[in-house]
Amino acid sequence: MAYDSTNIFAKILRGEMPCHKVHEDDTALVMMDIFPQSKGHTLVIPKAASRNLLDADPQTLSAVMPLVQRLAIALKAVTGADGIRLAQFNEAPAGQTVFHLHFHLIPVYEGVPLGAHAGGKADDAELAALAADIAASLQP
Amino acid sequence: MAYDSTNIFAKILRGEMPCHKVHEDDTALVMMDIFPQSKGHTLVIPKAASRNLLDADPQTLSAVMPLVQRLAIALKAVTGADGIRLAQFNEAPAGQTVFHLHFHLIPVYEGVPLGAHAGGKADDAELAALAADIAASLQP
Repeated sequence: MAYDSTNIFAKILRGEMPCHKVHEDDTALVMMDIFPQSKGHTLVIPKAASRNLLDADPQTLSAVMPLVQRLAIALKAVTGADGIRLAQFNEAPAGQTVFHLHFHLIPVYEGVPLGAHAGGKADDAELAALAADIAASLQP
Repeated sequence: MAYDSTNIFAKILRGEMPCHKVHEDDTALVMMDIFPQSKGHTLVIPKAASRNLLDADPQTLSAVMPLVQRLAIALKAVTGADGIRLAQFNEAPAGQTVFHLHFHLIPVYEGVPLGAHAGGKADDAELAALAADIAASLQP
């Protein structure tokens, strides 16, 4: 299916919508998920336009994965999570809700079940504080 | 935490245990998950030794992602799935059960809930047939 540049992540990448930004470089934007499944739920959004993994440029995928790793390490350090889930959904039946390629990094805390995605909007002040802490912990 | 080379995926990579192999190259082995969450659940296992994403060589991650993509495309074509989930778990609280880095690709079928991981062992003949079909569909 075709890429539609009116999706919300494309708007955020163009600066037309705000976000709780953790990091930005030539390849990708990292931001807090505002409907987190757990404390620290973060998204890595490649800047190149693709709907999902199925139509992405392979070079984009190769370029973004070291950043996904650096973020996972920073997230675990900042949140004290017991584990980290990486998830990426392709098409609506698989759970994709925004049709611009993105990777979820979801901290998991022992004994705490993950919330439903889009279960509730997080507090903006808490997200801003988390974004700053994760950015400070992200290795170059 | 440290890498333990007695894990089952390390044994499969060394040829000490069998698997339903889809593909093998210098970077990774692709095989069917024998406890599938859905029909076509497949694993991409980088050959380089790491426990998970947190201690992996970034170059390994970059090298393996184009293969993950090719496999996702082949899986969707072969299974007729309505979507594909990519998942990768880091440490036991996040769902990791084998402590050698691996990526799950899980076909999702509209209206069919995913099974629990390790819910039941799949039929070997069915897995062998799927492995052959996916291998034939995998683009070079």
